[in-house]
Amino acid sequence: MPSEAAHSLAEASSEYGSLDHEVLRAMAAMGQRARAAARIVAAAETVHKNDALHKAAQSLRDQSSAILEANAADMTAAQQRDLSKAMLDRLLLDSGRIEAMACGLEDVAALDDPVGAVMAEWTRPNGLRIARVRVPLGVIGIIYESRPNVTADAGGLCLKSGNAAILRGGSESFHSSAIITQCLQSGLVAAGLPGDAVQAIPTRERAAVGLMLSMSDCIDVLVPRGGRSLIERVSRESRIPVLKHLDGICHIYVHERADPEIARKVTVNAKMRRPGICGAAETLLIDRAALSLLPPIIDDLIEAGCSIRGDSEALEVDSRLIPATPEDWDTEYLDAILSVRVVEDLEEAIAHINEHGSQHTDSILTEDDAAAEIFLAAVDSAIVMHNTSTQFADGGEFGMGAEIGISTGRIHARGPVGAEQLTSYKYRVSGQGQIRP
Amino acid sequence: MPSEAAHSLAEASSEYGSLDHEVLRAMAAMGQRARAAARIVAAAETVHKNDALHKAAQSLRDQSSAILEANAADMTAAQQRDLSKAMLDRLLLDSGRIEAMACGLEDVAALDDPVGAVMAEWTRPNGLRIARVRVPLGVIGIIYESRPNVTADAGGLCLKSGNAAILRGGSESFHSSAIITQCLQSGLVAAGLPGDAVQAIPTRERAAVGLMLSMSDCIDVLVPRGGRSLIERVSRESRIPVLKHLDGICHIYVHERADPEIARKVTVNAKMRRPGICGAAETLLIDRAALSLLPPIIDDLIEAGCSIRGDSEALEVDSRLIPATPEDWDTEYLDAILSVRVVEDLEEAIAHINEHGSQHTDSILTEDDAAAEIFLAAVDSAIVMHNTSTQFADGGEFGMGAEIGISTGRIHARGPVGAEQLTSYKYRVSGQGQIRP
Repeated sequence: MPSEAAHSLAEASSEYGSLDHEVLRAMAAMGQRARAAARIVAAAETVHKNDALHKAAQSLRDQSSAILEANAADMTAAQQRDLSKAMLDRLLLDSGRIEAMACGLEDVAALDDPVGAVMAEWTRPNGLRIARVRVPLGVIGIIYESRPNVTADAGGLCLKSGNAAILRGGSESFHSSAIITQCLQSGLVAAGLPGDAVQAIPTRERAAVGLMLSMSDCIDVLVPRGGRSLIERVSRESRIPVLKHLDGICHIYVHERADPEIARKVTVNAKMRRPGICGAAETLLIDRAALSLLPPIIDDLIEAGCSIRGDSEALEVDSRLIPATPEDWDTEYLDAILSVRVVEDLEEAIAHINEHGSQHTDSILTEDDAAAEIFLAAVDSAIVMHNTSTQFADGGEFGMGAEIGISTGRIHARGPVGAEQLTSYKYRVSGQGQIRP
Repeated sequence: MPSEAAHSLAEASSEYGSLDHEVLRAMAAMGQRARAAARIVAAAETVHKNDALHKAAQSLRDQSSAILEANAADMTAAQQRDLSKAMLDRLLLDSGRIEAMACGLEDVAALDDPVGAVMAEWTRPNGLRIARVRVPLGVIGIIYESRPNVTADAGGLCLKSGNAAILRGGSESFHSSAIITQCLQSGLVAAGLPGDAVQAIPTRERAAVGLMLSMSDCIDVLVPRGGRSLIERVSRESRIPVLKHLDGICHIYVHERADPEIARKVTVNAKMRRPGICGAAETLLIDRAALSLLPPIIDDLIEAGCSIRGDSEALEVDSRLIPATPEDWDTEYLDAILSVRVVEDLEEAIAHINEHGSQHTDSILTEDDAAAEIFLAAVDSAIVMHNTSTQFADGGEFGMGAEIGISTGRIHARGPVGAEQLTSYKYRVSGQGQIRP
C-alpha cells in the first residue's frame, strides 16, 4: 500500500511538524513492516509461535546484564526528573523482575492458541455449513506507562494471538523497553518468524504518539493503558478502534448486613495488598447502619500505613481521618490513600459507584444475597464482586492466563484482556452450489 | 449528568452553528432521555420487551394508512429531487412492506433474549465463582440510508437486546421513519416501558449527524451503515466506538477447478437475485485456465439484464462486454452491473480481493478442497464462502434471526449483527471473603 503510506507520511508532515523527516520515514516504514509481519504471524503455526516465545524468554535471561544497564540509564534520568517513588518502583528492573518477564513469556507459550478455534459451527436446513472461527485482529498498537515489563507481556500476548504489535511505552522506560523489544525480536527470528511482528516506536518524542494515532492504514486496534486524559486523547484524535484500559477507581461497599470479619480483612486487602495496581480499591462506601464496623477497619488500614480521607460522618468515627474533598471521589490514588463515604443504603451506593467509578471493578460485602444480586446487576462495571477483594481483578486470577490489562470499554472486550480477547473472528460458509431463492 | 450535557451543547453550539438553538436543545434532551431509558430497558424482563415488540407490530398495522401517507410525502419530494430508481424503490412503502416490518418485529420478539445469558461460568481453586454474563451495550446510535424498514428492524433489535436506540435515517425517508418510530414508541409505552428507548433525530438537517457524533456522553456505540465516505466521516469525527457497516464489494472467484454448473448458477444468483443488497457480488474473478466457463456465465447474466465490464482478456471472450476502468474494481454498483477480471491463479485472486474488497463477503467456486481451504484462510473478510452465493450473507440466512447489517469492522462484531451482537458482558465474581495473597 505505497499510496496509503505516502498519504500517512504527508499527513504526518503537516500535523507532526516537530518530528524530523527521518523519524516520520521510520514510523511509516515501521507501520508497513508491521502490516507485512502481521500477515505472516496470523498464519503461523502454534508450535512456531511458542518456539518464538521460549526463545525470547531465553534471550531476556541471556541479555539480563544489558537490560539492567539500560534500565539503570532510565532510572538515572528518571531520578533527575524527580519522579514519584511509586513511578520509580514501576520503572525499576532487577534480576528477579527480568526472570519474572521470562517466565511470563513461557506462561503465554503454555496457553491455548486462540487462533483457528471454532467458536460455533452449525448446518442450515439448505445444507450450508457455517463455522465461526477465531482470527487475529491484525496490528495492535499499545500505549502504556513506564513499566518495562509490559513490553514483554504485551508483545508476548500479541504474538500468541497471531497479531503484530507496535509498542509505545512511557518515555521514561525508553531504553529498557527498547532492549526488551530486541529480545522479543531475536526470539521471533530464531523461530523463523519476522522480527517485525513486535516493534517499538523508535523515538521517545511525545509527538510520535500523535503520529501513531494517525496510522489507520497500518494499525487495526489501539490499546491505550492509562488515565482518563490519555484515553480521551486517543479516542478523540484517532479513527482507529480503541480498547480502552482506564485505570481503576474501584469501590468496596460495606452493606449494613456485611460480615464484620469479611468487611475488615477484604477492605484492607483491597486497598493495601498492592495499592498501586488498577484493581486496588480507592473508595470505601459504608452503610450508615454499618458504621460500627468502621473503627476496626480504620485501625487495620492505618496500621498497614494507609492514609484515610473521610466525609463528615466518617470523620466523626475517628479523629485520624482527614476531610475528603469532592475531587477525592473521582481520584485514583494508586497509593496508600483511601477515601471513605457513608451512604444511606444500597441505592445510594450504586448511584455513587455508577457516577464516580471507572467501570473497572467494584465489590459489595454483605450476607444479604438479595442485596448482592441487586448490586451485581445494577453496578455497570466490567467486574462486579460479592464478598471478595477487588485485587482479584486480574486475568491470571481469573484463570485466563496473562493479560494486557482490564478493559473498561463496553465493546469487543470487557474486563481482563488476554490472548483470546486480542482476536476477532470470521464466518466460513461451505456449500455444494447452493443459491439463495 | 447535567454538566456533560451542557458541555455537549456548548461544544455543539460552536461546531454546529447551522443548527438553531431549539434543535440543539432538543438533541441534548433526546440524548439524556435515551440514557435514562437505557437504564430501564437494560433491566426490563424479557416478557415486557416482547410485549412491546408485539404491540409495536400491531401499531404499525393500525397506522398503516398514516404510514403510507407519510411515505407518499417522502416519495413526492424524492421524485422531485431526481433520485435513482434503485433509491426510490428502497424508499417506497406499500402495505406488503408494512406487514413485513410488523412480522419482522414479531420475529425479533420470538428470538432468545441475549441479556442475562451466562456465556461462561467457572470456579477457581480458591473458591471464587466467576460468571461472564451478557449485558446491553447502552445507547446505540444508528445512521442508515433512506430505507424506512430499517427504522423498525434496528429499533426492534436494539430493544430486544436491552438497549436504547437513537436513529438517524436518510433525510429522504424523514416522514416515513418518524411515524414508524412513533409506532415503536407506542408499543413501548403500551408495554409499560419508556417510549424514549427508541427515538429518531428530530431534524433532517445534515448538521444533526455531526452533532450526533459528538454526543459521547449519551451514545455508547455508533452503527453507521453505508458507503466508505460515511464510515470514514464517523470514524474521523467521533470518539464514540463504531461498529462499521460498510457496503459490500463482494467477489465471486471461479477457480480453474470450478464445477461448470455451479459456476454458472452461483455467479448469476450472487449478482442478479437482488443486485441492490450489500451481499450482491460486484466483481467476478476467473482463472485464465477456467476461461472456457465464462461464455455461458456471460450469456446467463446478460439474459438476466446484467451489464458487464471486463478487463482486456474478458473482452476477448464476448464482444458485448464493455471495458472496465481501474475504478471498477473498487466500486459497489448496487445495480445490475458486474465487473469481470481474469486472474492467473488463486494467489492473484486472493491478492485482488484483499486489496479491492470491503472485507464483507467473498466466495470461491472450486472442486479443489485444498484451494478452497487456502482461500478461506487467506481472504480477510467477515464472511468467506466455498461453492455458494454471496447473497447468503444475511443474519436470517445464517439462522441468527434479524440483523442490523453486516459488520465489516474487526472488533466486537464481525459479519451479521443481530440481537446478540448488540450486547456486551460483565464478570460477576462471588466469594466468601477471599482475599488475594
